[in-house]
Amino acid sequence: MSVFASYVRGGWVTPDGVEGRPMTDAVTGEEIGRLATDGIDMAAVAEYGRRTGGPALRALSFHQRASLLKALAGHLREHREELYAVSARTGATKGDAKFDVDGGIGVLQVYASLGKRELPASGPWLDGDLAPLSRGGTFVAQHVYTPLQGVAVQVNAYNFPCWGPLEKLAPAFLAGVPTIIKPATPTAFLTAELVRLIVDSGLLPEGSVQFLAGSTGDLFDHLTEQDLVSFTGSASTARQLRTHPVLAARAVRFTAEADSLNCSILGPDATPGTPEFDLYVSQLVTEMTVKAGQKCTAIRRAFVPAAQADAVVEAVRGKLAEVVVGDPSAEGVTMGALAGLEQREEVRRSLKSLTDAAEVVFGDPEQVDVRGADAERGAFLSPVLLRATADSAAVHEVEAFGPVSTVVPYSSTAEVIELAARGQGSLAGSVVTADPDVAREVVLGVAPWHGRLLVLDRGDAKESTGHGSPMPQLVHGGPGRAGGGEEMGGLRGVAHHMQRSAIQASPDMLSAITGRWVPGSARTVTDEHPFRKHLEDLRPGDTVVGGPRRVTESDVEHFAEFTGDTFYAHLDAEAAAANPFFGERVAHGYLVVSFAAGLFVDPAPGPVLANFGVDNLRFLTPVKFGDELTITLTAKDISPRASAAYGEVRWDAEVVNGDGEPVAKYDVLTLVAKRG
Amino acid sequence: MSVFASYVRGGWVTPDGVEGRPMTDAVTGEEIGRLATDGIDMAAVAEYGRRTGGPALRALSFHQRASLLKALAGHLREHREELYAVSARTGATKGDAKFDVDGGIGVLQVYASLGKRELPASGPWLDGDLAPLSRGGTFVAQHVYTPLQGVAVQVNAYNFPCWGPLEKLAPAFLAGVPTIIKPATPTAFLTAELVRLIVDSGLLPEGSVQFLAGSTGDLFDHLTEQDLVSFTGSASTARQLRTHPVLAARAVRFTAEADSLNCSILGPDATPGTPEFDLYVSQLVTEMTVKAGQKCTAIRRAFVPAAQADAVVEAVRGKLAEVVVGDPSAEGVTMGALAGLEQREEVRRSLKSLTDAAEVVFGDPEQVDVRGADAERGAFLSPVLLRATADSAAVHEVEAFGPVSTVVPYSSTAEVIELAARGQGSLAGSVVTADPDVAREVVLGVAPWHGRLLVLDRGDAKESTGHGSPMPQLVHGGPGRAGGGEEMGGLRGVAHHMQRSAIQASPDMLSAITGRWVPGSARTVTDEHPFRKHLEDLRPGDTVVGGPRRVTESDVEHFAEFTGDTFYAHLDAEAAAANPFFGERVAHGYLVVSFAAGLFVDPAPGPVLANFGVDNLRFLTPVKFGDELTITLTAKDISPRASAAYGEVRWDAEVVNGDGEPVAKYDVLTLVAKRG
Repeated sequence: MSVFASYVRGGWVTPDGVEGRPMTDAVTGEEIGRLATDGIDMAAVAEYGRRTGGPALRALSFHQRASLLKALAGHLREHREELYAVSARTGATKGDAKFDVDGGIGVLQVYASLGKRELPASGPWLDGDLAPLSRGGTFVAQHVYTPLQGVAVQVNAYNFPCWGPLEKLAPAFLAGVPTIIKPATPTAFLTAELVRLIVDSGLLPEGSVQFLAGSTGDLFDHLTEQDLVSFTGSASTARQLRTHPVLAARAVRFTAEADSLNCSILGPDATPGTPEFDLYVSQLVTEMTVKAGQKCTAIRRAFVPAAQADAVVEAVRGKLAEVVVGDPSAEGVTMGALAGLEQREEVRRSLKSLTDAAEVVFGDPEQVDVRGADAERGAFLSPVLLRATADSAAVHEVEAFGPVSTVVPYSSTAEVIELAARGQGSLAGSVVTADPDVAREVVLGVAPWHGRLLVLDRGDAKESTGHGSPMPQLVHGGPGRAGGGEEMGGLRGVAHHMQRSAIQASPDMLSAITGRWVPGSARTVTDEHPFRKHLEDLRPGDTVVGGPRRVTESDVEHFAEFTGDTFYAHLDAEAAAANPFFGERVAHGYLVVSFAAGLFVDPAPGPVLANFGVDNLRFLTPVKFGDELTITLTAKDISPRASAAYGEVRWDAEVVNGDGEPVAKYDVLTLVAKRG
Repeated sequence: MSVFASYVRGGWVTPDGVEGRPMTDAVTGEEIGRLATDGIDMAAVAEYGRRTGGPALRALSFHQRASLLKALAGHLREHREELYAVSARTGATKGDAKFDVDGGIGVLQVYASLGKRELPASGPWLDGDLAPLSRGGTFVAQHVYTPLQGVAVQVNAYNFPCWGPLEKLAPAFLAGVPTIIKPATPTAFLTAELVRLIVDSGLLPEGSVQFLAGSTGDLFDHLTEQDLVSFTGSASTARQLRTHPVLAARAVRFTAEADSLNCSILGPDATPGTPEFDLYVSQLVTEMTVKAGQKCTAIRRAFVPAAQADAVVEAVRGKLAEVVVGDPSAEGVTMGALAGLEQREEVRRSLKSLTDAAEVVFGDPEQVDVRGADAERGAFLSPVLLRATADSAAVHEVEAFGPVSTVVPYSSTAEVIELAARGQGSLAGSVVTADPDVAREVVLGVAPWHGRLLVLDRGDAKESTGHGSPMPQLVHGGPGRAGGGEEMGGLRGVAHHMQRSAIQASPDMLSAITGRWVPGSARTVTDEHPFRKHLEDLRPGDTVVGGPRRVTESDVEHFAEFTGDTFYAHLDAEAAAANPFFGERVAHGYLVVSFAAGLFVDPAPGPVLANFGVDNLRFLTPVKFGDELTITLTAKDISPRASAAYGEVRWDAEVVNGDGEPVAKYDVLTLVAKRG
């Protein structure tokens, strides 16, 4: 049988004369091909990523990398039928395949859009606000993110051969870090197909993605403090990798996402007949059968109020009885095969431990009716529902990674919070209730053990993506048993691939380093009003000073009358005197910023197209009658948009009174046209 | 000699009949006492923290915990002379002691103030913005932080016996996580004194701080997925702890801060005679001699332009010649002893490796003149300056943890960036230059290898806290050799002690869980205007609707004339038509928010005292002449201030036009009085 090729150091490489490890069709048991990486120089693979992929990625801006992710998503979308076809051989139904393939494409799209919307057009990505470090303001600090200059090694699980590599690739790529993909054996043939599509697209810079069709060999021995390892798989392998001597010695950034004993909790209010009861039952059946239960996030422990346990079991049995197991391509099949015979054996072993303490209330671990396939050659298994008491230790410790869940009755919310914690850390949990008090108590009670929690009720059921679906915007990962890591989480996953450094400097130096104007640094006041400058000509620090303008009693009275804002502090001297902050009548804050705009604006048509917003406006000192206002407006951050004829300019605005005291500080946001 | 007591499970415990490990006076060599934890039930210590300290801490709000930190800082400040006195026995000068003691108190103060200013008065701490997950808006998500329900075990280094425990305690305590303090042997007697002061203050909830005067025994075997370990010390011990089987198996959150081969880079512009040259030399001498060079952040590698190497060496030698080594209590002494004789032996060993490839240009590792003490009984060592070439491997690998630095010449900024990286990850670095281009290139070039970088020049020199000083607001920790961890960093260090969970729910449920009004959830419109309600009576969701008000051409013309904001889009029909966003004349954004205020405000004196700001104002749809504006203002977040007669209320403001399209969205910030 042929050995699959790896894509390393710019080309496809197939080892010669080695046997390799077989991959089989989950439905037919037929061999598909073999995996081997013998003879591949892993040190050179890592170095190729660092020396070729890294610089190529870092030469691009966040926005350019985001555009490439978007283009890649488009390319894969066009070719997804090819992926679906191969996916069927992993035992997946069409629905399962979409979860894996379309889900992965969706991650690329979300990261593409986050990259364009939230990350800077140039200069380092800033973390948090400027930190003042001194009284005189000459010493300040800013945290910045710069891309790690190593490779992101991803070690994937077999259950999501497309989504897994893509959800790890997207944040690494956007951060500017090249990836080495290592698939899990049973379904590596599908990941190989995915990588073939990526390589053939020609979209990504050379060296930004490499692929090992087999073992990582001695790759880990060659990792450095600039590399990362992201692992998805079993808790025991996570433990083993985590303690690898090189990872430990060089503090290689390591994150693990391990399957866990996720729970779903039915609220005491959700009795039979309520929408939440039905939602709970449907969700449990979905989580048991999608991907034949081979989801790290699937519900393993179904906690239900003791009084409802019988009803839940009955309802779930009823729905499970309708599940049709078989060849995913056969008509009417609703649940496919496990990934392979070894995986089925593993589930059966786990079921043996579980059934010591739990009763089987649906299904037979040893037997199942199969449509359109051979029940023994294919890795088919019946859905199995168990029922146990809360004190059964195995239920909280043993995971059967297949279509298996256990119903466990509980007697109080305090008890169910304790039970959830006995899973020792989970990726995902759900609480199904219409009672906000139950939701609040249970969610905050179990949150320390969970990376993600879903509250399901009639209010969100229609649009909810369900218990088992990680979302690119949200952290995926959980404490303890779940691996202790975090993936995705929107930009959090990008930051994971970057080094956060605190930069301490004078404001001027910090402006030079970040490419933004930092408060306290030099301003450039020129004869030309900065609103006359096109985006390319504007520089951070470009400043206009307007005023002074005197604020009179009649201004304030007029503004009050005109706008209807007759708040007493503006009009009633006696009442204003009693106010703890004013002591006398003061001008409206909105009057101050309106006058300020009148002082800084350049009225004729020009490059400044619109003021689209204001951020962080703070009124610092009340403006009294007779105060003279001066406004200083300074270009702070200039962000061209690649796909538009304009960009965004953030201006620092400071209004001071005649004594030089700041009365208002804010950011003015404008759209400014490009020159050509 | 007497064995020191541990403070565990609510009391001081001294093991009986054990010899213990001796601690000696660094200056005289005299024994001070012994350390032993034999017989202490470590599982019970951890469980006491979890069961007693944890619940007591979590029963308090962030603000209450912040107040306790502030009170503790005050208490320690009052008693700092006691700490200084003990500190002298560690070999520290008065200046060194202040660094350690006052520095630690400063961390408590900064966290106290961050807690009050930045963390919520009630409800979970939110991370990031609301994430919309569905088109219809019924399914949204919010990341929240909840305190880990375990203990924070801190394993400290000997060089900062006060600052070390306090910089680890402050963020843990503020997060709501109890601490177990393990000091390093040589200086544990000073940490014991610190803990005695903490316990005697009676300020902190019982169980929130425990202290092990000796080994952790089998404590690590009893840690769980809710516990944390924060280690400071050598890279080799970090590696060992990181791979502890229980830490690995249960993914115990682990952070390490190890000493590293920090560099300081002199810019090519900073030739002799420039302020930066002098700053560089002074800083290097300071870093070599403060704490006798026993700082994890001290400069080990001094990179200087080849042309300046001789001049730097000369200048540093000149200043080192003025250093007076001796008993810290003796008149005129400017550098004290190392922490002990063992530490001195270790430095001498490292120096042997270094001098194979580097030349000693100042000092004698084996001999030093000592004032007021016995040079052999006390752990005294001369400052030692070395000079090496860039290709000396040992310089980038061997750290002599004492008053030792090596001058290394470089030939280009590209080369010096490579050289910095050869340290394989550092806590801190500095770049001394007045050239913004050099600063930008070098800082961004070396940032991936650094947790903190200082740019020192004439602009910040006066207020700079220097190369070696970690700041509570900034991350402390670096990649690779430096341990790969992060401590402090302001609230980042608090988050490290909490679990981040994504909560997916309907807006209504999310409002109930977070205690804030979430956009999309129900609003409560009552007869009583919400501005008539005192802080205690106001509820998230309380809403006032104002309008409609028609915006006319004459309103706009009048506003333009009144404010001076005569931007063409408001006044010139032809020019406005050419603007890509407007197409016709539109109202001023500031007019819209001014009218909105007129529509929602309740003018008579009442609980609402002031509008102190506006956040996140976005103008979404242009307002055309004749548009009818309606404003909806909803209380979103209600934050009482413990120490004031009022609190802050954040209101969600939405202005819509006659077609129901949003024209502006923003947050209005007000101060609202308490009932009494």
